[in-house]
Amino acid sequence: MNHLLFGVAYYDEYMPYDRLDEDIRMMKKAGINTVRIAESTWSTCEPQPGVFDFSHVERVLDAMEKAGIRVIIGTPTYAIPTWMAKLHPEVMAVTNEGQNRYGHRQLMDITSPAYRFYAERVIRKLMNVSAHRKCVIGFQLDNETKHYGTAGPNVQLRFVKYLREKFHDDLDAMNREFGLDYWSNRLNSWEDFVDVRGTINGSLGAEFEKFQRTLVDEFLMWQADIVNEYRREDQFITHNFDLDWKDHSFGVQPDVDHFHAAKALTTAGIDIYHPTQDLLTGKEIALGGAIARSLKNGANYLVLETEAQGYVTWVPYKGQLRLQAYSHLSCGSNSVMYWHWHSIHNSYETYWKGLLSHDFAENETYKEACVIGEELARFGDHLVNLKKKNDVAMLVSNEALTALKWFPLDSLLNKMDMGYNDIMRRIFDAVFDMNLECDFLWPDSENFDDYKVILVPALYAVSDEVLHRLTRFVENGGHIVVTFKTGFANENNKVSTEVQPRILRECLGICYHEFTLPRDIVALKGDIIPEGEHKAEAFMELVIPEGAEVLAHYDHYNWNSYAAITRNHFGKGTATYLATLTDEETLKAVLRTVMNGAGIDLSEETAGVTIHRGVNDYGRTVWYYLNYSPEEKKVIYHGRRAVDLVWEGSAEPETDQKIEPETELIAAPWGVRILEEEQA
Amino acid sequence: MNHLLFGVAYYDEYMPYDRLDEDIRMMKKAGINTVRIAESTWSTCEPQPGVFDFSHVERVLDAMEKAGIRVIIGTPTYAIPTWMAKLHPEVMAVTNEGQNRYGHRQLMDITSPAYRFYAERVIRKLMNVSAHRKCVIGFQLDNETKHYGTAGPNVQLRFVKYLREKFHDDLDAMNREFGLDYWSNRLNSWEDFVDVRGTINGSLGAEFEKFQRTLVDEFLMWQADIVNEYRREDQFITHNFDLDWKDHSFGVQPDVDHFHAAKALTTAGIDIYHPTQDLLTGKEIALGGAIARSLKNGANYLVLETEAQGYVTWVPYKGQLRLQAYSHLSCGSNSVMYWHWHSIHNSYETYWKGLLSHDFAENETYKEACVIGEELARFGDHLVNLKKKNDVAMLVSNEALTALKWFPLDSLLNKMDMGYNDIMRRIFDAVFDMNLECDFLWPDSENFDDYKVILVPALYAVSDEVLHRLTRFVENGGHIVVTFKTGFANENNKVSTEVQPRILRECLGICYHEFTLPRDIVALKGDIIPEGEHKAEAFMELVIPEGAEVLAHYDHYNWNSYAAITRNHFGKGTATYLATLTDEETLKAVLRTVMNGAGIDLSEETAGVTIHRGVNDYGRTVWYYLNYSPEEKKVIYHGRRAVDLVWEGSAEPETDQKIEPETELIAAPWGVRILEEEQA
Amino acid sequence: MNHLLFGVAYYDEYMPYDRLDEDIRMMKKAGINTVRIAESTWSTCEPQPGVFDFSHVERVLDAMEKAGIRVIIGTPTYAIPTWMAKLHPEVMAVTNEGQNRYGHRQLMDITSPAYRFYAERVIRKLMNVSAHRKCVIGFQLDNETKHYGTAGPNVQLRFVKYLREKFHDDLDAMNREFGLDYWSNRLNSWEDFVDVRGTINGSLGAEFEKFQRTLVDEFLMWQADIVNEYRREDQFITHNFDLDWKDHSFGVQPDVDHFHAAKALTTAGIDIYHPTQDLLTGKEIALGGAIARSLKNGANYLVLETEAQGYVTWVPYKGQLRLQAYSHLSCGSNSVMYWHWHSIHNSYETYWKGLLSHDFAENETYKEACVIGEELARFGDHLVNLKKKNDVAMLVSNEALTALKWFPLDSLLNKMDMGYNDIMRRIFDAVFDMNLECDFLWPDSENFDDYKVILVPALYAVSDEVLHRLTRFVENGGHIVVTFKTGFANENNKVSTEVQPRILRECLGICYHEFTLPRDIVALKGDIIPEGEHKAEAFMELVIPEGAEVLAHYDHYNWNSYAAITRNHFGKGTATYLATLTDEETLKAVLRTVMNGAGIDLSEETAGVTIHRGVNDYGRTVWYYLNYSPEEKKVIYHGRRAVDLVWEGSAEPETDQKIEPETELIAAPWGVRILEEEQA
Repeated sequence: MNHLLFGVAYYDEYMPYDRLDEDIRMMKKAGINTVRIAESTWSTCEPQPGVFDFSHVERVLDAMEKAGIRVIIGTPTYAIPTWMAKLHPEVMAVTNEGQNRYGHRQLMDITSPAYRFYAERVIRKLMNVSAHRKCVIGFQLDNETKHYGTAGPNVQLRFVKYLREKFHDDLDAMNREFGLDYWSNRLNSWEDFVDVRGTINGSLGAEFEKFQRTLVDEFLMWQADIVNEYRREDQFITHNFDLDWKDHSFGVQPDVDHFHAAKALTTAGIDIYHPTQDLLTGKEIALGGAIARSLKNGANYLVLETEAQGYVTWVPYKGQLRLQAYSHLSCGSNSVMYWHWHSIHNSYETYWKGLLSHDFAENETYKEACVIGEELARFGDHLVNLKKKNDVAMLVSNEALTALKWFPLDSLLNKMDMGYNDIMRRIFDAVFDMNLECDFLWPDSENFDDYKVILVPALYAVSDEVLHRLTRFVENGGHIVVTFKTGFANENNKVSTEVQPRILRECLGICYHEFTLPRDIVALKGDIIPEGEHKAEAFMELVIPEGAEVLAHYDHYNWNSYAAITRNHFGKGTATYLATLTDEETLKAVLRTVMNGAGIDLSEETAGVTIHRGVNDYGRTVWYYLNYSPEEKKVIYHGRRAVDLVWEGSAEPETDQKIEPETELIAAPWGVRILEEEQA
Repeated sequence: MNHLLFGVAYYDEYMPYDRLDEDIRMMKKAGINTVRIAESTWSTCEPQPGVFDFSHVERVLDAMEKAGIRVIIGTPTYAIPTWMAKLHPEVMAVTNEGQNRYGHRQLMDITSPAYRFYAERVIRKLMNVSAHRKCVIGFQLDNETKHYGTAGPNVQLRFVKYLREKFHDDLDAMNREFGLDYWSNRLNSWEDFVDVRGTINGSLGAEFEKFQRTLVDEFLMWQADIVNEYRREDQFITHNFDLDWKDHSFGVQPDVDHFHAAKALTTAGIDIYHPTQDLLTGKEIALGGAIARSLKNGANYLVLETEAQGYVTWVPYKGQLRLQAYSHLSCGSNSVMYWHWHSIHNSYETYWKGLLSHDFAENETYKEACVIGEELARFGDHLVNLKKKNDVAMLVSNEALTALKWFPLDSLLNKMDMGYNDIMRRIFDAVFDMNLECDFLWPDSENFDDYKVILVPALYAVSDEVLHRLTRFVENGGHIVVTFKTGFANENNKVSTEVQPRILRECLGICYHEFTLPRDIVALKGDIIPEGEHKAEAFMELVIPEGAEVLAHYDHYNWNSYAAITRNHFGKGTATYLATLTDEETLKAVLRTVMNGAGIDLSEETAGVTIHRGVNDYGRTVWYYLNYSPEEKKVIYHGRRAVDLVWEGSAEPETDQKIEPETELIAAPWGVRILEEEQA
Repeated sequence: MNHLLFGVAYYDEYMPYDRLDEDIRMMKKAGINTVRIAESTWSTCEPQPGVFDFSHVERVLDAMEKAGIRVIIGTPTYAIPTWMAKLHPEVMAVTNEGQNRYGHRQLMDITSPAYRFYAERVIRKLMNVSAHRKCVIGFQLDNETKHYGTAGPNVQLRFVKYLREKFHDDLDAMNREFGLDYWSNRLNSWEDFVDVRGTINGSLGAEFEKFQRTLVDEFLMWQADIVNEYRREDQFITHNFDLDWKDHSFGVQPDVDHFHAAKALTTAGIDIYHPTQDLLTGKEIALGGAIARSLKNGANYLVLETEAQGYVTWVPYKGQLRLQAYSHLSCGSNSVMYWHWHSIHNSYETYWKGLLSHDFAENETYKEACVIGEELARFGDHLVNLKKKNDVAMLVSNEALTALKWFPLDSLLNKMDMGYNDIMRRIFDAVFDMNLECDFLWPDSENFDDYKVILVPALYAVSDEVLHRLTRFVENGGHIVVTFKTGFANENNKVSTEVQPRILRECLGICYHEFTLPRDIVALKGDIIPEGEHKAEAFMELVIPEGAEVLAHYDHYNWNSYAAITRNHFGKGTATYLATLTDEETLKAVLRTVMNGAGIDLSEETAGVTIHRGVNDYGRTVWYYLNYSPEEKKVIYHGRRAVDLVWEGSAEPETDQKIEPETELIAAPWGVRILEEEQA
């Protein structure tokens, strides 16, 4: 890709009146150079089974081509037409709650052959009318695909076959590995397989969810295979992965294994929705960006959806829309695409507002998009294809996430709202706040050695092999930061009989036999602990040092002999352990030690603004200074002589704006500075 | 009606032993002159299908007639007998949650022909034994009828026919108007109509609820037609409408369009249940009264149910039962009827206590009823048929209420507990606290011009026609107070493509393109704002004045250029806009300006007690001074020379108690004064 | 029984590898002398229908016998195998929520003949291999049996027959007694019986729950009859009853009538799970102990399950495991058995941890068990078969508990989380804190006269007969403390028409007609009320004294004429009434008066530690001083010359540790002292 995509999702189908020419005029004015169309419009494209009408698609393609606006075609398969639900009620997924009623999107069984038959036909028809078009630069498969909890008899039958294969038809092996003897859940014959939706066995239940995730891999690969029959070499295949949702994009997606599912794509894509106004921090943008960036070995990715106005609470303050756009680019995205162009006048997401309000008038948000568009047109070629080389990576796992849902920190009590992503985010956010950029790793990633430091939050359910690789990583000079719960169970959620932390015991130089909850009464003490009160916030392993240095211990009459935070030298590296969840300040103190030990530069930790860096197509380093605050910030520039790409806040815009090293830069409230270093 | 009804619901059927004579003795002692009987007693009247036994009804009629107590006959149809549920399981309504189980009342499908067959027969039989009786003064149709969410295949089939008629068989028109293309919900054939219970389309969903409300209109009209075949000219037909419920009567009923449904009645009726003890404010009584009074052009109405002891938290403090009774009458009610005479010894509402406790003894509540009965007997003829001429009306709408349920203020977040009635009540309560009396209007009301001021809370889903009528109302010298969200969508929940506020833009002299939530951080500033901190409490439109005077703007660095409260002169009237929800103090400041502008007398605003007025059958103005507080209150009487009807707190009860203008009246704690002006 | 059982539940079936010899070695080291096996292992014992494999059971029996460890055999019937659910789906119970899915334990219909057929066969097979074994000392029937809400058509058919018998086929009697006329629920033909799961009639609903409890009685008796065919005279039959659960054992079990169900057993048994760490109070141990002890006329009972590490929040502080063990013994238990030996590596209760963690290593909890084991081996014969003679008893009732669920204190509001057990616990806890030991009585108990004081919390639904017995108890010199709500309804949940408190009115010397909630604004005043603010906390009857002395009245302008706490002399005894729920301090002030009046010694009330006493097999009184606090406590010993059984804290362990009367004892933090008086 040699250009940034500044775009919107566009639905001619939803328009209350013919707006196409006027919309294109307004897009051009705003610098919008890409639209995504067609996804979700199945009932318009195929009004009756086998009757096709792509007039909306074709007229938009015609108009966009003429206007020089690029088009991404989305396959329309994530929302089925009424006629299909009526004709083939069996396409509606059967979930834990019974069979879905038609209405909402994404309620069908993605394995249903009836659904697949119609989906394949409409995709092929759509490819026929669109793939050859010059303006079409790529394809998006479906939309935020997940397994939607599909668990009907057909899915469960496949699951039994999957289990037979996994356990080589050895029932005893499965009973043993899953501990099915407990409460007489043992299966003594494959014919006795009962509805898995009722299971209370965490191994079996988590395995079923893992199996459900493989359905998504298979589904996307199936769609990719179809699209591949039609697409040109220069057309990409992408998909808009979405993250776990806590009123906004929050963490690792529970229902898709992004690392596996991405194999169907030529280009990773992601949807990132985040709070704005006083809650805009850049963290969700960095998180989603880092995940997407890491799916394809650091290759640039596409932000296929992000909000313009979005939720009613997200209407951006002045400057924020622009800050957000550059935040995405600073993470390595090659696009900023809004969902969506115009607010929709009916139905469900009426108040998930687009760039335009319902009145299609030029509002403040649109006006700010015009500024962005103008700037990207001017110097976007200096920002596209930004490449990063990070020293720090976070190792995440769908299996661990699912396991901690089955076995939460307080287990059967299940009253703490503290899941895997909460723990992961605590660490990710601390790293972000230290002004360090971070990539992601998955258990199957093969590039552990690309990093100096690997962060390992709550890697609860994990194979021996991964733990051995982590051990070797340290042995060879790497540094790991591991939290409580890591390694406790194997990949089948069988808790180990080894003394914990399993396999990592020697590497971490510690062990523990018991754990409890701090219940807000246990403080932390130790040289590493910052001034003031710092508590054990959640979970609390009673760690006995076996060679490791104790950085902090519990401050409680009954627990004070146990360690809370330790560091161990092992081989050429170090292994740091957090036996409890700490506040971010404590966490940063620990991470600082680790980063220093790993030789990672922390000089920008206190810069006061967020700094992102990468190398552009010209081989030059681009520095982003992102000010996520309503105050003006001053920051010393530590790079080489550079060009100020935006001239924002410049006194003399007519000069060519060379910035000398150690210059004090001013970043406006919710503002951004972008500097491009001169070539060495 | 030439007498006040002071009454109770009476259930001979529920009595643990024969109490009829003793109950009548106690009723007479308490001045009870009316009983309502028979509703809910179907299983006693018709023990087996086609076997009738009206002995309870007839013995009560005999005894009441002899005792000179009037009787209202309720049709028994709201609670079906076990035999019907067993014999015809299909009469149980199918709702969003599936088919109801028998047990609770009001769970049947009111459209079921089996139910209708039996209901008609039992009504006719009951009419046969009761309609000719002298003591029977009227009939109550069913009880608090609603649609009970009935949504089975039969109801949905009728709905499809309703839609075909509404859209003249034009599917495209419906798809367009409801925006069904979104998420492929488009209907390309009427045969493809899928179960509407799953819909996420707010237009379709709200239309279905509107359709369900028409079932109630039709049901009551059907019952009225039957009763009309039997009743005498002097016998009324009424129905006890109930309000939206928030632990007590709270606001507009979501499941019935009272304005439409009331067409079946000769006399409006209502059930009003409200907090007492320290929470007794008179507001729910005034609200329910105003709604009932407005259903039939200001005609007097019946309070068919209100509590005696009621909920365990509602046992009245000394004086409150009497204050409540006069509160009803002061609003124009011609009755005060308690649900119910005696507390029930079993089943479900065992602790919804009656005038008597389970022990049938004379308790404090009963003793206070005796005082009321004695007073009403003495001067009730001066209170009956009170007529009002109010200057202020509130325009409410079932469609707007339903729409704000589908599209709450925070939309998809759906975390605020702030619906249509909360907004409506904020304004109603402020008006009440300003000592102004207020009527109600509905979109179909034809008497907008009877008022000087129309209050328009959140009239979200509304036809062009109503907005044009409001505009003309202002043009012709009327004054409107309009809140945020008004006019945003048409009557089909299609958001307008006009710049907002749609149609009213010129009249209000403002426009807005965007809106957000204040999240507790936005204060209000402006001359109108009282001292102290006053915040934007919920929702927040970013209003741009276009000629209107800005009464207040947002006090927030990013939003301070936008107006929060505006007033515009338009034609001969004014149009005031509230772009956010304010506290009551701010609201009263705004309303004060409006009322002054409309020439409405505010001299009693600070009287310290609630004042209600009306003209009685003697053509004289009656003044009620209602003291909803535990403190004695002093208030200056501003009317003409008057008679003190009660002599309460009088030093010399033997005088004829003439009260001169500008006399200082004393209202006892939880007390009431009632003055009748001398004729002019 | 001539020995204490110190034991664990042991599951060879769940072991990840063969641990039997090593486990026995560790048990012996810890002094474990008993294991409970086999319950919940049905799918292992009977892998396919009719195919049996008791190899796990037999190898454990062999090993235990060899090691001298006793065995309790649990019938495996509470968790059914997958093959049964697959082959006979009808065994899964139909509850209010529909038919259960297989997975969790205790979801079958305990009345299902298919289930019963297989259950009987497996029990008989298990008996065949185990009953004759020397090491087998007794049998546990099933596990924490309840009715699991079974309510399918078969169960409802039995219920109809039960009702016909109860009412001698007299439908009218039932309609009248249950008040079914209300809302037309009347049954005019037995054929019209509709699904009881939908009922809103509290009498019918509560009766159904009572009927469901009888299914448990019948089920346990059925199992006992089978086991009786096999067991030796010296082998006991027990069952591990469990209590109502509020994150731990809390109160009377709603779903079993323990008093009735215990008739199937030779020895009462109970499971007690309680908070530890800072929340260890000894109250749940005393409560569960008192219930179990009272089931068989004061006979010693077995604690079949209690936690070792248990919940993640329950990991014991140093000393607590030992304190807990002696707490059980001090209440009359003849056993302390942990659930379970080792933490389980899979499935559901993975984090309900055993004595051993998943690593099977010697952890702190295990090490403390070793101390206990050593001590019990040394002087357990002085602790076994402890007999008590208490003066105080608490009268509890399943019917009252169920009734207050149907008719909670705030009735239809149903917002207070204040049920029967909360009220009961408030009183039980106050008595515990006064250092008084207390037994339990049920309505059918015949030994009221064994006590000086009977505490009667909220005995809402109760027969005339029980109230008359209480009256006679007082007349004859007994003392009762009765709370609000007592006697309000009869045993069929029909509220009385008598002036309340029904039947007890004369005995209590009070009456009331009305009641309300205090809503946190009503204080209590009176000589009995301690210094400081003391409020009416929940419910509030408006009591009119009729001869009783008013100990406290309500401090509120509208209610201050009513009594809140009264005491009446009646016959030779006294009757004290609490018309509202008070805080514990007030409650203790009231109880102090009552106990003094009853001649009950309160000299240990302020001892600062909990004191339990009883007489051992040697006829000597044993004193337990239990220190539930992290501070060292000093307490004066008031008994005769005694032996210190533990020598804990002793300066000279070599002396024979005679403790003289009035010696100051020191109880360590979370420590215990045990003194055995010399014979008189």
